[in-house]
Amino acid sequence: MSEPGDEELEFDEEAWTAGGSPLDRAAFNSDGLLPAIIQQEGTGEVLMLGWMDREAMRRTLTEGRVTFWSRSRQEYWRKGDTSGHVQYVRAAALDCDADTLLVTVEQVGAACHTGTRTCFDGDPLDVRRGIPPAAAD
Amino acid sequence: MSEPGDEELEFDEEAWTAGGSPLDRAAFNSDGLLPAIIQQEGTGEVLMLGWMDREAMRRTLTEGRVTFWSRSRQEYWRKGDTSGHVQYVRAAALDCDADTLLVTVEQVGAACHTGTRTCFDGDPLDVRRGIPPAAAD
Repeated sequence: MSEPGDEELEFDEEAWTAGGSPLDRAAFNSDGLLPAIIQQEGTGEVLMLGWMDREAMRRTLTEGRVTFWSRSRQEYWRKGDTSGHVQYVRAAALDCDADTLLVTVEQVGAACHTGTRTCFDGDPLDVRRGIPPAAAD
Repeated sequence: MSEPGDEELEFDEEAWTAGGSPLDRAAFNSDGLLPAIIQQEGTGEVLMLGWMDREAMRRTLTEGRVTFWSRSRQEYWRKGDTSGHVQYVRAAALDCDADTLLVTVEQVGAACHTGTRTCFDGDPLDVRRGIPPAAAD
């Protein structure tokens, strides 16, 4: 059964702007951008990090789909429009100083343009693992 | 039982640099920084985003503890040194274009200076949830 009203039920445009728009609260950098961490709902996988200007953030919060600002192409880039690998927005939060956005999504297919599930799958680094004192006893 | 050798077993300094240092592969921005996403091992919680220059990244990968570059204080900041809320490094990865670092950690206590577990706990945003076509049928 189609439920076209679902999206509307989740979002009240008036309430959104009445309490002070998060777009006004967001601290964009000197280029007018902030980093957006994209995380898969449920699994917690960190899929990628992209950049948003005010308009990309507005679209992401109000349209149900993640939109970035592409710094290399200097244009808006709605994830999945060409690849089909859509990111459906499930939740979002600003961090404590409002200069980073965390967006929880339902990711369709591969998040990375290289074809891997996340953009962090291809280059795991050799690290010295830190051992908490309690665990070392 | 104390196992002081554990950290050493996890990390081979020679192998780390022989294959091309990740510090050389990393794409720092025009300020010499890259964003580092800090994620709790196991739960997948995104704890915070901080910034690292080459030296902070080197320390993070080789010392078992997360070190950031504080843009506001213009100094290195080893997480937990003053708060006790240490981040022990468990794994790290560069993303597909090497301009973002994901660090998996064991977080002691609150990651956020406001006292919340993550820096994203305080400001959840009202969003329009996207509904995948299949889920709407």
